[in-house]
Amino acid sequence: MGDSLAAIIMGSSSDWPLVKKAADTFDALGVKYDARVMSAHRTPDALREYVKSARAAGVKVFIGAAGKAAHLPGVIASYTSAPVIGLPIKSSALDGMDALLSMAQMPPGVPVATVAIDGAENAALLAAQILALSDSALSDKLERHRQSMARAVEKSDMDLRSSLHGEKT
Amino acid sequence: MGDSLAAIIMGSSSDWPLVKKAADTFDALGVKYDARVMSAHRTPDALREYVKSARAAGVKVFIGAAGKAAHLPGVIASYTSAPVIGLPIKSSALDGMDALLSMAQMPPGVPVATVAIDGAENAALLAAQILALSDSALSDKLERHRQSMARAVEKSDMDLRSSLHGEKT
Amino acid sequence: MGDSLAAIIMGSSSDWPLVKKAADTFDALGVKYDARVMSAHRTPDALREYVKSARAAGVKVFIGAAGKAAHLPGVIASYTSAPVIGLPIKSSALDGMDALLSMAQMPPGVPVATVAIDGAENAALLAAQILALSDSALSDKLERHRQSMARAVEKSDMDLRSSLHGEKT
Amino acid sequence: MGDSLAAIIMGSSSDWPLVKKAADTFDALGVKYDARVMSAHRTPDALREYVKSARAAGVKVFIGAAGKAAHLPGVIASYTSAPVIGLPIKSSALDGMDALLSMAQMPPGVPVATVAIDGAENAALLAAQILALSDSALSDKLERHRQSMARAVEKSDMDLRSSLHGEKT
Amino acid sequence: MGDSLAAIIMGSSSDWPLVKKAADTFDALGVKYDARVMSAHRTPDALREYVKSARAAGVKVFIGAAGKAAHLPGVIASYTSAPVIGLPIKSSALDGMDALLSMAQMPPGVPVATVAIDGAENAALLAAQILALSDSALSDKLERHRQSMARAVEKSDMDLRSSLHGEKT
Amino acid sequence: MGDSLAAIIMGSSSDWPLVKKAADTFDALGVKYDARVMSAHRTPDALREYVKSARAAGVKVFIGAAGKAAHLPGVIASYTSAPVIGLPIKSSALDGMDALLSMAQMPPGVPVATVAIDGAENAALLAAQILALSDSALSDKLERHRQSMARAVEKSDMDLRSSLHGEKT
Amino acid sequence: MGDSLAAIIMGSSSDWPLVKKAADTFDALGVKYDARVMSAHRTPDALREYVKSARAAGVKVFIGAAGKAAHLPGVIASYTSAPVIGLPIKSSALDGMDALLSMAQMPPGVPVATVAIDGAENAALLAAQILALSDSALSDKLERHRQSMARAVEKSDMDLRSSLHGEKT
Amino acid sequence: MGDSLAAIIMGSSSDWPLVKKAADTFDALGVKYDARVMSAHRTPDALREYVKSARAAGVKVFIGAAGKAAHLPGVIASYTSAPVIGLPIKSSALDGMDALLSMAQMPPGVPVATVAIDGAENAALLAAQILALSDSALSDKLERHRQSMARAVEKSDMDLRSSLHGEKT
Repeated sequence: MGDSLAAIIMGSSSDWPLVKKAADTFDALGVKYDARVMSAHRTPDALREYVKSARAAGVKVFIGAAGKAAHLPGVIASYTSAPVIGLPIKSSALDGMDALLSMAQMPPGVPVATVAIDGAENAALLAAQILALSDSALSDKLERHRQSMARAVEKSDMDLRSSLHGEKT
Repeated sequence: MGDSLAAIIMGSSSDWPLVKKAADTFDALGVKYDARVMSAHRTPDALREYVKSARAAGVKVFIGAAGKAAHLPGVIASYTSAPVIGLPIKSSALDGMDALLSMAQMPPGVPVATVAIDGAENAALLAAQILALSDSALSDKLERHRQSMARAVEKSDMDLRSSLHGEKT
Repeated sequence: MGDSLAAIIMGSSSDWPLVKKAADTFDALGVKYDARVMSAHRTPDALREYVKSARAAGVKVFIGAAGKAAHLPGVIASYTSAPVIGLPIKSSALDGMDALLSMAQMPPGVPVATVAIDGAENAALLAAQILALSDSALSDKLERHRQSMARAVEKSDMDLRSSLHGEKT
Repeated sequence: MGDSLAAIIMGSSSDWPLVKKAADTFDALGVKYDARVMSAHRTPDALREYVKSARAAGVKVFIGAAGKAAHLPGVIASYTSAPVIGLPIKSSALDGMDALLSMAQMPPGVPVATVAIDGAENAALLAAQILALSDSALSDKLERHRQSMARAVEKSDMDLRSSLHGEKT
Repeated sequence: MGDSLAAIIMGSSSDWPLVKKAADTFDALGVKYDARVMSAHRTPDALREYVKSARAAGVKVFIGAAGKAAHLPGVIASYTSAPVIGLPIKSSALDGMDALLSMAQMPPGVPVATVAIDGAENAALLAAQILALSDSALSDKLERHRQSMARAVEKSDMDLRSSLHGEKT
Repeated sequence: MGDSLAAIIMGSSSDWPLVKKAADTFDALGVKYDARVMSAHRTPDALREYVKSARAAGVKVFIGAAGKAAHLPGVIASYTSAPVIGLPIKSSALDGMDALLSMAQMPPGVPVATVAIDGAENAALLAAQILALSDSALSDKLERHRQSMARAVEKSDMDLRSSLHGEKT
Repeated sequence: MGDSLAAIIMGSSSDWPLVKKAADTFDALGVKYDARVMSAHRTPDALREYVKSARAAGVKVFIGAAGKAAHLPGVIASYTSAPVIGLPIKSSALDGMDALLSMAQMPPGVPVATVAIDGAENAALLAAQILALSDSALSDKLERHRQSMARAVEKSDMDLRSSLHGEKT
Repeated sequence: MGDSLAAIIMGSSSDWPLVKKAADTFDALGVKYDARVMSAHRTPDALREYVKSARAAGVKVFIGAAGKAAHLPGVIASYTSAPVIGLPIKSSALDGMDALLSMAQMPPGVPVATVAIDGAENAALLAAQILALSDSALSDKLERHRQSMARAVEKSDMDLRSSLHGEKT
């Protein structure tokens, strides 16, 4: 895992098309990360080993992405005191509500920081916000990212107004 | 765990008043069991050791009782191929719906046999049904239990009819 | 039903494409099973006869697959003390939530072992886990199945890492 | 069951305090009924016999009251073509939502006429509306019941206006 | 409305493709019906007039089909003591759950007999069951319909067994 | 209804303890209102007459408060083009979710302005905001109400800080 | 914003295809409006400025359209005492239920008038109903709109009857 | 706010009894914090000023606690790039589900790290985990906290086994 500061773990490679947005966000912000496929239920021992060694190797924040029963981030959190972010995935009949509850409703003592269903970008942004507390360059990048989001909204606004004005005239 | 055939594991001792009905059901049927407090998140290593050694010591079926995110039976199931019964407990703001989904919606490959919210008696009965497949004495006890349930319904029916008849006459 | 150890009953032949995964899992594990279309509401007497005779003929575990009100496994369980597995099917407007609740929320005394919505593979695996308690060959097959699942996850993990490494280099 | 036109069947005598409102409504309207405790899961054969013989003895409409998985009215409906009314009872952790779905979501071919959770009075009124189609005396009573409901609302309205006027003056 | 015994009222003509199955069921059973598009909210006065005159003209049972807030059957029921069947339609973002609750949860005194979401066939069958109480020819047709449903299930069962046997041999 | 500008209609006098907060809010703001008990289902004709005459008599905005199926505000809206505010009441097993959906999910063409479950104060405030658009004195009162809410939050904040400071010193 | 009486604010330009129906409804009724893209979370300061200046410039009613967490109308309402209409959009995994609750469940003191999920037309109609209280020309247009809706229902009714009659003859 | 590293903001002082557990957790871990009552809707400008100045004064992580629509943490997050933790409170008819969705379902770009409904202790622990990434003393305290939780589970386990052994002997 080299010098990664964040680890993205997903329960199945079928989650990758969605989870990739988290990786892309890390790439855009210059956050080094390790992306892995590991299952809380199918490879529990490998997951345990990975979490413990990743923490020792310098990983500061974990993202666990899973659908359905979605125990992955909770199991990660049982092995480390580093912040664990839960990314619930809409991969079931229940539209991700099962995964959302299974992550958010963690018992006292072992929190999982849960983001929106399919909110891969936000999972990475939250991780970056956490890392930025001791990394001013990353903090600046987050600030610029926020400003570029604002500008995108402003541009949408202008485009809409132009198009409406055009329609009306 | 001696010669226990079933293990009841609960995530917190506060679940015991509810879970005790499972133990009572085992007692009534003469099923030897081990009852333990172990947490998937607070004592993950102890849980792993217990599941592996219990299976080796002759435990044939596990009941995992938990509320909220309720990962316990799923984590048990990640360590054994023995049947694992999930007993969702209504210990949260969401009336146990979170626990129910977190147990029932397990991913392909690692099933949890989920019973009703707060269905402690049924968790034990299901375990007994499984054990009875190779224990004809237990099978007979289950049959008698079923007959006594039927008689209880019939008695309720007679009582109601008597009371209604009395009211009307 | 010959020498079947498991019976798969579905409420409608339209459920077969989904339920077939349970049959395939049994085939892969060498579990002999009987697959039937029977309705708790349209053919109640035939269902009753079947459950009683199947049990007598050696069937040890039942899987009831149904959508919507999904009374099938509960009705099966009313006729036998053998373990009954409920497989809720997403065939309704409510995405299978109605079927899940209708199976899991069985009253005290008559449990149904409920698996995930559309979790056909898990229904069969749970049945196999139950049968394997007195069949060491099947137990070995389940262990190998579990190991092959682990290897599949590990392969996915390696593939992802290769592809990411490739992308980055 | 004598000359009863309606049968009220409840899954457990613990439902009686709620179900009694249905019986009271029948008493008030002069509808003869039989009230029974019978379980779809614990006394399936007795239930089957009862439904078939009740229909033969002149019962024209059935009310099945149950909580949780609440298969009772659906099972009644599997044995008769007479109208079956489902009365879902709030006896579970899920506030009766499980019972409501389990009754309303019946598959094509076997309807259950579902009323509100704990809507015992409405179950009886619906049965009476059905019976009144061929009983003009009952039809008149229903009309008077409706008028008395309207007058009760009007009285509440007058009381509120008086009290408010009093407060304000 | 001629000599119709049942009235099917839908809130919007866009519901017709679904509601048509109720009409088809009536046609198959020889039940005369009137099918109308009327809105509780857009044409409240016309609806009121229709319900009152239909009842006078001999209509014995009403089906109200609607989606979303789905007040239609409740409003029908406010104008008549005849049985009113509510058919909730999945026409909203919420998959018909809003319509189901809006029909089933009617207040004491004014029941709506609610069937499954999109359960058009069952709405008509329930109406026919009610009408059959005083129409033995219709009662016989319902019995035959039930038998043909049973035979269809039996045929599905045989087809599945043949196909499985073929696969295995 | 005299010179009332707003009408509060509730389906049952049992709703008054909750609905009274709307009346109190109107009293505090000096908004004249008429408060009535009328049922969409039990007194449909009286409701229709009232809505039509109230509008003619100068009522500009209606509040319909109801629980369960909660058709009241929708039925009011079917008789007037004045704004209708829906106040869902938690009077059922389902905690008011049924009432909320039954009000919010109105079909295109006939809106109901829905506020929070049991949000009686907000129903009145929304009505006052609407009336204040053409009543600058009321507009000033709303502004002062808003400022006094802000001051109440500020006072709570100061109290908490004082108490915490005291605890710590 | 010129002489606009209503402002439509959406959180993202991707909402425009849905929100456009609100704009079209305003156009049809001759209500002048300003349509803007502004985000409660990405451009909070711009939103605050806009709401305050729009109110000063004569905007009387705001529509806030958003999906998911959907804070937009609540944040608008924190800056103005003018009526704010919330239009929840189905843009998330949860079919708009999250947006509906996030708008309807506003705390005491700051109401949001919530309409149906994706109910863009109703959001505009509600705004027009509010504006029509002091604009009799608009009031007339609303009345005509209501009559044309009624005629459309009547036409659908006639078409259905013709087609049914044709089918039967 | 002196040298606080964390800020706990609640929407209403009525939330304090629940939120106090977060403060107690910070006290136990020696984390300096500022606890405030501020409302996203009633005091939006004060909230904005506070968030901006707190960040400048050294606050590194925010906890926003709120019930019902629960916009508070989302609004905080709109003013800062520091991590914001959302603590949904069960203060509404809907048991906190509304608050949970309103926090977790934040749109892309502005995450809120959501913990369990009423999970005040976990909100503080998550904040401490974040702060501990650059504070090894705090990291040690978290590790000891985790060990003491494990010991508490082990003690519960021993107590249960003793009591069961006692019962049985």
